[in-house]
Amino acid sequence: MKKDLKRLLTVLATNIRRLRKDKQLSQEGLAELTGLHRTYVGAVERAERNVTLSTLTSFARALNTSVPDLLLDEGR
Amino acid sequence: MKKDLKRLLTVLATNIRRLRKDKQLSQEGLAELTGLHRTYVGAVERAERNVTLSTLTSFARALNTSVPDLLLDEGR
Repeated sequence: MKKDLKRLLTVLATNIRRLRKDKQLSQEGLAELTGLHRTYVGAVERAERNVTLSTLTSFARALNTSVPDLLLDEGR
Repeated sequence: MKKDLKRLLTVLATNIRRLRKDKQLSQEGLAELTGLHRTYVGAVERAERNVTLSTLTSFARALNTSVPDLLLDEGR
């Protein structure tokens, strides 16, 4: 996997996990909210999946944020 | 297609087209830079394709921008 894609997926994974925990949701709970499979949510949180914008809008809606914000590196 | 996905794809399409024209690139030129097919670039610029983060990193690299910036609505 290309380096800048891996970096972006890692930022996404970190943001999803943080926002999910802020809402005291399990991966299973987030899976239910998004309509995605629990194992898929886990794979995204491990930065293993090359997600689509469609999937990102589902995460953004469930976590009350925007797609660009899900991709922004908070640590920078 | 869901409304917020369509909105996001339209923002992306507008941004790619604007940045491509700023660089005086044709869709064919952008296709060469990204390694994507010319007809695919055209479909993205018509907001018809649900693109992946991998594809977005290719566009961002070719257009000297970041993936979050490609998804931000400049008009807002």
